[in-house]
Amino acid sequence: MIKLIPTRIPIKVGDKYIAVLNEHTAHKLDLHASDRVLIKNGQKGEIRALLDITDNDEIRDTEIGLYGESWEKLKAKRGDKLTIRVAEKPISVMYIKDKLEGKTLTKEQIDEIIKDVVEDDLSDVEIAYFAGGCYTKGLNEEETVNLTKSIVAHGSTLKFHKKVVVDKHCIGGVSGNRTTMVAVPILTSLGLTMPKTSSRAITSPAGTADTMETLANVTIPGPRLQKIADKVGGFIVWGGGVDLAAADDRMIRARHPLSLDPEGMLLASIMAKKHSVSSTHVIIDIPVGPQVKIKTKKAGENLAKKFVSLGKKLGMIVKVILTNGEEPIGNGVGPILEAIDVIKVLKNAKDAPQDLKEKSIELAADLLELCGKSKKGEGSKIARKVLESGQAYKQMMRIIKAQGPSKKPLIPGAYTQDILAQKDGKIVEINNGLVAHIARTAGAPNDKGAGVYIHKKIGNIVKKGDKLYTIYAEVKERLKYAEEYDLNGVYIIK
Amino acid sequence: MIKLIPTRIPIKVGDKYIAVLNEHTAHKLDLHASDRVLIKNGQKGEIRALLDITDNDEIRDTEIGLYGESWEKLKAKRGDKLTIRVAEKPISVMYIKDKLEGKTLTKEQIDEIIKDVVEDDLSDVEIAYFAGGCYTKGLNEEETVNLTKSIVAHGSTLKFHKKVVVDKHCIGGVSGNRTTMVAVPILTSLGLTMPKTSSRAITSPAGTADTMETLANVTIPGPRLQKIADKVGGFIVWGGGVDLAAADDRMIRARHPLSLDPEGMLLASIMAKKHSVSSTHVIIDIPVGPQVKIKTKKAGENLAKKFVSLGKKLGMIVKVILTNGEEPIGNGVGPILEAIDVIKVLKNAKDAPQDLKEKSIELAADLLELCGKSKKGEGSKIARKVLESGQAYKQMMRIIKAQGPSKKPLIPGAYTQDILAQKDGKIVEINNGLVAHIARTAGAPNDKGAGVYIHKKIGNIVKKGDKLYTIYAEVKERLKYAEEYDLNGVYIIK
Repeated sequence: MIKLIPTRIPIKVGDKYIAVLNEHTAHKLDLHASDRVLIKNGQKGEIRALLDITDNDEIRDTEIGLYGESWEKLKAKRGDKLTIRVAEKPISVMYIKDKLEGKTLTKEQIDEIIKDVVEDDLSDVEIAYFAGGCYTKGLNEEETVNLTKSIVAHGSTLKFHKKVVVDKHCIGGVSGNRTTMVAVPILTSLGLTMPKTSSRAITSPAGTADTMETLANVTIPGPRLQKIADKVGGFIVWGGGVDLAAADDRMIRARHPLSLDPEGMLLASIMAKKHSVSSTHVIIDIPVGPQVKIKTKKAGENLAKKFVSLGKKLGMIVKVILTNGEEPIGNGVGPILEAIDVIKVLKNAKDAPQDLKEKSIELAADLLELCGKSKKGEGSKIARKVLESGQAYKQMMRIIKAQGPSKKPLIPGAYTQDILAQKDGKIVEINNGLVAHIARTAGAPNDKGAGVYIHKKIGNIVKKGDKLYTIYAEVKERLKYAEEYDLNGVYIIK
Repeated sequence: MIKLIPTRIPIKVGDKYIAVLNEHTAHKLDLHASDRVLIKNGQKGEIRALLDITDNDEIRDTEIGLYGESWEKLKAKRGDKLTIRVAEKPISVMYIKDKLEGKTLTKEQIDEIIKDVVEDDLSDVEIAYFAGGCYTKGLNEEETVNLTKSIVAHGSTLKFHKKVVVDKHCIGGVSGNRTTMVAVPILTSLGLTMPKTSSRAITSPAGTADTMETLANVTIPGPRLQKIADKVGGFIVWGGGVDLAAADDRMIRARHPLSLDPEGMLLASIMAKKHSVSSTHVIIDIPVGPQVKIKTKKAGENLAKKFVSLGKKLGMIVKVILTNGEEPIGNGVGPILEAIDVIKVLKNAKDAPQDLKEKSIELAADLLELCGKSKKGEGSKIARKVLESGQAYKQMMRIIKAQGPSKKPLIPGAYTQDILAQKDGKIVEINNGLVAHIARTAGAPNDKGAGVYIHKKIGNIVKKGDKLYTIYAEVKERLKYAEEYDLNGVYIIK
């Protein structure tokens, strides 16, 4: 058997074991790119790795290149002699092919795939084929239930000693939609447990985690989260900081290049995250509008049924509400501008955005009624009272203290530009997508103070010269970049 | 704009530009794994690269890791300051998503995808999604024609100053099927041009290129191939040594992890290779049998129609023959054992395998009649005469001389084991797949002299103790490995 000398490639590749041969050696050994191989370093170590092939001489014929993780696991040293042989593919590769062929996968088959995803036994290409199979052939309800359960089983979970754990989720797409940051303090101040993990922005100007981060630390490990929830009833943190639904994160990575959203995976992804934090009662907010993910009421209702039914199979009570996705909620778009909106609502400021306030009350009310904390029809009254009395604000301060308050002041970007109405009329449309682009180009979400402040909403009557919106940037140059967009195209005035 | 210090990752990754950031820097810059980025090294260079993210500190916050190709193209030095910004995805990514959604792609869209495949502007994951889309949603005939044309247009081609260029292709799966090496000398000795590019074994004990390599050099660049064809009328070389249908090779790489064979891609792959060498008349040999790729006559006939029709659209005259795929052709399985069979046939040796001889004559005859070199019904007589007169053997020697003869003698492995019949009876079945496994385990195709020699075929009457087949190995240990299979399971005697 051929012995190869290890050579270290000084970089890690994210938990995966990857080895590299040059093409002559690979040909001699009858090995191909993305084959699995067993590599043995005598008694010192053995790994199962994915093989890369290089066509240049930086890896010589007598050598095997090992990325950081493989080098360490094999306890390799330059003088070692390694052996390599082809290993079987994981059986899950066959199940992935079955899905591409339109077959229904069993519970055991799905679990095998998810186990291999988490254990890094499947390459990105193979995970992409799984996503492609789910996208083109779909997952039926049983498969979706099993996928959700497997994702939960192969990730971290948070458990609370409570019969009722409430949660909410919004199928993104609407700027400034920071209802979570109002609803969590309302509900937890009433004694409910609400462990909210949120995402950061991927293509939007701010995720809830980005906005909350302007007020408090949001990257907190699981055990501390359990203590925080015991103490103040809940939290609002970045989901990526906890290792919940780890398989889902890896599948999202493989879906990213095509922004592929197979419905079954979308359902499983959301519900696995709720299930991982032991949620019992969940509201799903589906904004509907021409520029958000769900375009029509009918598509929303269809998806809603699936959420409710999936919840039932997982032992969760789910209610779905279809909301207005036609314009931003609140006035601020961008982390600090949105956080200011939230604080205004919690403080009952005169200029608090009413749409954010009312939508948050509605969501809180639905959760109160759903879990039996209030009678039907009375949730709204209770939620409003907690908010307007300042009780929710005090609770938010407790949550912020428990997570660790941010030391930076809540000040929007210093460079601003007002965009004025070009004519008199009534606002009939706001281009959500363009608002998001402008806010991102101005620097959001990384420049926390950057973004857009909306002065006028759909239905407002404006006169020529009225302020429609203001762009904020922390870096002067970025304001100029933002100006390259069609700034007057944001509002349609008729 | 942030300036990053380049750090060199001392390995090349096969023409692609790949850069690596650590996760903090990526988060700060709002960049994600597999994003495209534009990296600029002042006036020294600029590349469009795919981004990898690492979660360890081997790439520091202030650094950007560059693999070999990127480092060189950017003329990077340790003290340089690089800028990075997100770049648009290639538009072809959208077309790939369209295919996954079942849309029919236009000529321009397919061409855009293939251009980006060849220019390494698509990642393996994205190419895998394309294969997944073609597999699940199919390609109609027009798409297949356009795919074939694009593959040809974006690869090297060989042109000959001849009106007629003949070629053949066999949809693998049958061991020992070395008809090419008999048919090429027959046809070229009659003045026809036959530029044959063949593959190496991937999962079989020998490809035609592996077998030919025991006689002559098979890795020859395009310009020399044209000279060889001008001189002796044809050649038998490894297709991978010429850059024909480069896009196809990359797509095959992305299909390899799942052994995915979308029909449209299979058709385009084969026909692009024929079109790249300017073939005008082509015979496609489809073996049919329970253990080969095409299981039933009906499936074979279906595929045959598609080949003929696709050929017509590409200006090629194609004839498909369905052949017996139930047992190996010839007696040898493994490069040297197969080459010995071929030489025996060409030399008209008494113990030459008659099935290999007759199948080769049939194929040559079909091509003679197809291109009008002989009248209908007379091809067989002409081909037989050329073979039996020794003219074809002489021509083969000319071809070998032109390609460069092998210096190694044609000697089978020194370690052998005979497998004997366990009872009297008639052979009703030979397990092709098991024969291939045993030959591979014995060392084929890398140990050229390893393999299996078949003494008895389907229909033969045997007595207990008769030799059924012999295993050959060059390495004693490998003979033992081969013995681990169910050696008596190869033949079914009734």
